[in-house]
Amino acid sequence: MKRLLMVFAVAALVFSASAKSIKSPDGNLVMKFELTKGGRPTYSLSYKGKQVVKPSALGFEFVDNAYENYGTFYHTPERPSYSMREGFSLKGMETSSFDETWEPVWGEQRTIRNHYNELLVKLCRDERGFLLNIRFRLYNDGLGLRYEFPRQSSKKLAYFVIKEEYTEFAMTGDHMAYWIPGCYDTQEYEYTVSRMSEIRNRMVEASENVGTASKKVFSPTGVQTALQLKSDDGLYINIHEAALVNYSCMHLELNPKTKVFTSHLTPDALGYKGWLQAPCHSPWRTIEVSDDACKLLASNLTLNLNEPCALDDTSWIKPVKYIGVWWELMLGKSRWYYTKDFNGVQLGKDDYTKVKPIPNHGANNENVRRYIDFAAKHGFDQVLVEGWNIGWEDWFGCKKEVVFDFRTPYPDFDIKALNEYARSKGVRLMMHHETSSSIRNYERRMESAYQFMNDHGYTAVKSGYVGDIQPLGEHHFGQYMVNHYLYAIKEAARHKIMVNAHEAIRPTGLCRTYPNLIGNEACRGMEYCTNADSGIKPHHAATLPFTRLKGGPVDYTPGIVNMKFADQTSIRSKSKRSVQSTICNQLALYVTLYSPLQMAADLPENYEKQPEAFQFIKDVAVDWDESRYLAAEPAEYIVAARRAKGKSEWFVGGITDDERTMPLSFDFLEKGKSYIATLYADGKGADCDKNPHAYTVTSGRVDSRTSLKIWMAHGGGFAISIREATEADAKAKKLK
Amino acid sequence: MKRLLMVFAVAALVFSASAKSIKSPDGNLVMKFELTKGGRPTYSLSYKGKQVVKPSALGFEFVDNAYENYGTFYHTPERPSYSMREGFSLKGMETSSFDETWEPVWGEQRTIRNHYNELLVKLCRDERGFLLNIRFRLYNDGLGLRYEFPRQSSKKLAYFVIKEEYTEFAMTGDHMAYWIPGCYDTQEYEYTVSRMSEIRNRMVEASENVGTASKKVFSPTGVQTALQLKSDDGLYINIHEAALVNYSCMHLELNPKTKVFTSHLTPDALGYKGWLQAPCHSPWRTIEVSDDACKLLASNLTLNLNEPCALDDTSWIKPVKYIGVWWELMLGKSRWYYTKDFNGVQLGKDDYTKVKPIPNHGANNENVRRYIDFAAKHGFDQVLVEGWNIGWEDWFGCKKEVVFDFRTPYPDFDIKALNEYARSKGVRLMMHHETSSSIRNYERRMESAYQFMNDHGYTAVKSGYVGDIQPLGEHHFGQYMVNHYLYAIKEAARHKIMVNAHEAIRPTGLCRTYPNLIGNEACRGMEYCTNADSGIKPHHAATLPFTRLKGGPVDYTPGIVNMKFADQTSIRSKSKRSVQSTICNQLALYVTLYSPLQMAADLPENYEKQPEAFQFIKDVAVDWDESRYLAAEPAEYIVAARRAKGKSEWFVGGITDDERTMPLSFDFLEKGKSYIATLYADGKGADCDKNPHAYTVTSGRVDSRTSLKIWMAHGGGFAISIREATEADAKAKKLK
Repeated sequence: MKRLLMVFAVAALVFSASAKSIKSPDGNLVMKFELTKGGRPTYSLSYKGKQVVKPSALGFEFVDNAYENYGTFYHTPERPSYSMREGFSLKGMETSSFDETWEPVWGEQRTIRNHYNELLVKLCRDERGFLLNIRFRLYNDGLGLRYEFPRQSSKKLAYFVIKEEYTEFAMTGDHMAYWIPGCYDTQEYEYTVSRMSEIRNRMVEASENVGTASKKVFSPTGVQTALQLKSDDGLYINIHEAALVNYSCMHLELNPKTKVFTSHLTPDALGYKGWLQAPCHSPWRTIEVSDDACKLLASNLTLNLNEPCALDDTSWIKPVKYIGVWWELMLGKSRWYYTKDFNGVQLGKDDYTKVKPIPNHGANNENVRRYIDFAAKHGFDQVLVEGWNIGWEDWFGCKKEVVFDFRTPYPDFDIKALNEYARSKGVRLMMHHETSSSIRNYERRMESAYQFMNDHGYTAVKSGYVGDIQPLGEHHFGQYMVNHYLYAIKEAARHKIMVNAHEAIRPTGLCRTYPNLIGNEACRGMEYCTNADSGIKPHHAATLPFTRLKGGPVDYTPGIVNMKFADQTSIRSKSKRSVQSTICNQLALYVTLYSPLQMAADLPENYEKQPEAFQFIKDVAVDWDESRYLAAEPAEYIVAARRAKGKSEWFVGGITDDERTMPLSFDFLEKGKSYIATLYADGKGADCDKNPHAYTVTSGRVDSRTSLKIWMAHGGGFAISIREATEADAKAKKLK
Repeated sequence: MKRLLMVFAVAALVFSASAKSIKSPDGNLVMKFELTKGGRPTYSLSYKGKQVVKPSALGFEFVDNAYENYGTFYHTPERPSYSMREGFSLKGMETSSFDETWEPVWGEQRTIRNHYNELLVKLCRDERGFLLNIRFRLYNDGLGLRYEFPRQSSKKLAYFVIKEEYTEFAMTGDHMAYWIPGCYDTQEYEYTVSRMSEIRNRMVEASENVGTASKKVFSPTGVQTALQLKSDDGLYINIHEAALVNYSCMHLELNPKTKVFTSHLTPDALGYKGWLQAPCHSPWRTIEVSDDACKLLASNLTLNLNEPCALDDTSWIKPVKYIGVWWELMLGKSRWYYTKDFNGVQLGKDDYTKVKPIPNHGANNENVRRYIDFAAKHGFDQVLVEGWNIGWEDWFGCKKEVVFDFRTPYPDFDIKALNEYARSKGVRLMMHHETSSSIRNYERRMESAYQFMNDHGYTAVKSGYVGDIQPLGEHHFGQYMVNHYLYAIKEAARHKIMVNAHEAIRPTGLCRTYPNLIGNEACRGMEYCTNADSGIKPHHAATLPFTRLKGGPVDYTPGIVNMKFADQTSIRSKSKRSVQSTICNQLALYVTLYSPLQMAADLPENYEKQPEAFQFIKDVAVDWDESRYLAAEPAEYIVAARRAKGKSEWFVGGITDDERTMPLSFDFLEKGKSYIATLYADGKGADCDKNPHAYTVTSGRVDSRTSLKIWMAHGGGFAISIREATEADAKAKKLK
């Protein structure tokens, strides 16, 4: 008996020495780390007692002996690997807890609680002496894990080259997946909804209809993150990464047989996936889990895993509501470029004052003043102007290095006068830096370009990366470009400039650390309604909060109120020009797609024809003290309610793909208070294709006990603005 | 008869319509352009009635339809070509002449005559409408030709991608060739002397023993330019390029059967060879021809083909004689790096004040002051200091991006105090920017780095590009890097900074346009005596003026007076540490290897042991009013005489591989004047291996009628400094 006990004790010791579990603060999630036979690190995750992630491997393949001799690296295509997936021994384990509430500069909530239990595992790859730590943070809403390379014992170990990362996410079933194709250069795909097993069959179709000038789908079974999954028993699982800094962007490669997703990093020009120097760490790999879709949407996991704000002074960072000389460009009514007289323009050599301008150059003095007037009249902060600067004649695709100089306006854009005019009206112009992905050119001119913004009173810039990256061979999502995007943000912060980067890396919560990053596109946005054969289907916006918004806000540019414009020329496609969305669906997006930067994207003349709908866009806030997701199902419907920062005003938005009647309880309102709500709802017979413009506006009294049923059309929605009732509302009736 | 005459006339018309010859001003060279059947442009060259270049093709292969749709370029490895080698029709031909004398800011001569006859051929690739001009300039010393793409008729034609350039140089025989392997990343090879037909057999051996951290030999029959050839009937032929701007560096690919060299450009990361936008032009392809090796060395073809000086003010550009904390580093006596306590250092994070310095960090206050004192005592302008700044612990090979910040000194280098000390002694420190080929890092910091130089009183920088280029996939000699090197020079000029770029592109005469480019390495230089198994053989320096110096001066760093240092540690190799050169050979290099930037490279203590030899180094000028090559044979011997700028002092230098007695006539001296010459000659029994230190110094009277025979040892030489005789020399005897 003694012997048996001893065996058990030893076994327990051995067992406990190579495995450890931690729980989330509420106990629902349990993560188990285990170093299995052969020294392979693994982890698994369960939720409310049920397995969510089966034992999944961790680790890397390095380039073997990347540095030989005096540290020279000779590139040969067949460089052998060194496995960092096995042969580890456990050096130690530490657990800790953390509970802190912090305030974002802007966000969905005034405060965010960062509460987790942590396990730090210290490993050593004995054969060579590599030290590797893996840190796990388990929140109520999910798990974050990251690799950390502490200071090594020699320089030879300090520098290493990643051939591939092998972080597995072993799923327990053939879940429904809401996905876009894994791609090294763009995220502008429409979301496909299919089982994991169907990804391969659907990949070709899913990869088409992307009108971007740079694209590289890498596998028939590869997908991008954030990836949303749903199990047959109703569990929502979301995989993404947080704090992507000095590392290559992670995609997921699926093995349909084993149902295992494995990390797949973006390669550099030579095919390598990461050049690192210890001490350093990978981004966090995140797995959010909930049986409640609304809770999943409300998760702050990604932000919590990022570093706190790095800027001392954030007083200059303010959410922005803007309009722009932009939709008319997307429609083809006007053009970015100034003239057709050049056959290839050379900046600094060719004289724009000597050529004939086209009749419809969008960014001209008169047109810009018109937008400034409109913005001032309707209370918008800024006016974006695209096509203001020389060089648009050769925008992209030419692999031209010096496409733009970011300083020289066209002859018909008086930058000084227009900025003064804007300011006199209480409005600012918004800068535009299309880089054409010519990175060296942008970096060489960046100081000059940002200083130019300071000199002319610009506070925000929309940047763009249209076209293949130069230096050629690099990808939009590789380590080299991840470094560049952050450099642009940091340099902008030095100049007190806010950045909205389009065609850049999808965000991973860095806006916590650099809150001047107020926007990204990184998705198929409203412009696709004007220029691709398939446009955007109604399920897309109902998927984005589960995917694209997991890392940060999106500059989706909604607010279109004229859905049919087939009579207007379109840049890339004439076959289908329309927005598959009712007006109320467009209004709701200001609430369902969180962003501190919101555009009223349509033409002023279209808003003037829809003053009632436009009123909601004018009223809706862009910064919030509270947010609640009231109803949600990926690719089907979203209902969200938010309270404006520092006010008692609420805004509610609901969107749907299929027609449905949505029950809405106003129990988010403060008990005992009376409010006036204005409801914008799809009109009778509305439909995103056949009758998108029909809507009704009704006002009435509501309070926390109010409950309504609101019908939404196919591709429809509703929007509600709510303010506290005053004495003037004494006679207001209940809202029905 | 009339009919015959008409036929002849028509034939003549037709013939003359598709072919044209021009002559050099002295009539010796005749170049014939001909558009042959099928519209193929060709040229040929003859010298004194004999063919030198047989009819050789011209043209390109473009990437077919590089820009499709709205100008998007989708890279696929098998992109088809479009031939720009045939199908041309002649649109016109113009001839002209040019004769102008110009003054370089510094050089071998005070004035240079630019005298040529020119033919401009205008072609059209009829099938698509590409316009292509070819400009030929025929000088007495050779031919230059370049491609010009005028403004095209559409944007689609304006942007094009070069797959390869096909400029042929069809040789008339299996000439002797003085060559280094074609390579995309380094020129630090020793010259091989062999027939063209032997290049393939010798390539492996020729490619070895290069200690550089970045290397890419591309073919068993590829060579670099400038390529020196010699025919069996004694004709010297030299092929190079001039004015390499915004284009990829040209190498030559040999077809040994046909004896045709064809241009081979350096690829980018994707394998393409040039991204151009019309209007634009290629560099000049140059062919120097002479039956006199000395005349070939004296040619100014490369400089003449470059654009005139682009800088308004050049008063700040001055030739420099310098010493440096450098040879001791190459010997391994001291180190660039400061500490061994870091295992991978992270700039800005790791604290150098908290670690233990190694005992022999070269760039420390005391040592630098010692060099400053030595420079001041002996009249040197500047002191180069390598290893002054943080980061050397991880110098190269780690693919580290932020290796250096170019601003932060090590704790033992008081930059302010040392610069003040230097200036108090009438000396300056020379800046050092080792970039580790991390291009983005250098460009991001360049403004700050140059401003730092201005703030601390530096006027010159030696830059370095050790290691594979980052962005990875690019090569040292590709278009991307050619652009960078020029950017660094132009930015330096804005800051009134002179540049000496090592491991950069071999020069092509750009110092005419940017005379602040005062030096390049771009060859196997003296450092190889310390760190490679084979060192440098004595024929190398006798080849360089025929090859490397064709494009511009070389920072060869000669002047070693202690040839044997096997007892001292060496960085890379312990087997052979010595200089295969006598002392007098080293002295002569200051005359035979022209450079406005000359280093006395040895350790101060070694010069103190050889004060007589050192006196020549102190006396020799670095800027000239006149230069004459008195005797020369590639890889065998060079004798040159130069008159110092603004003075009547002459300096003569002679070097040899094999032992020989060199007749020397002083007829370059001004007639009727009397001079005192000091001759430094190899001592009896001297030999570069067995007895390199033996030399004699004799002084005596010389004049234009003097004639001497000077014996040179194997790997030996002689140096002479000549000044006008004064009354004090009344008793001087004739030099013997």
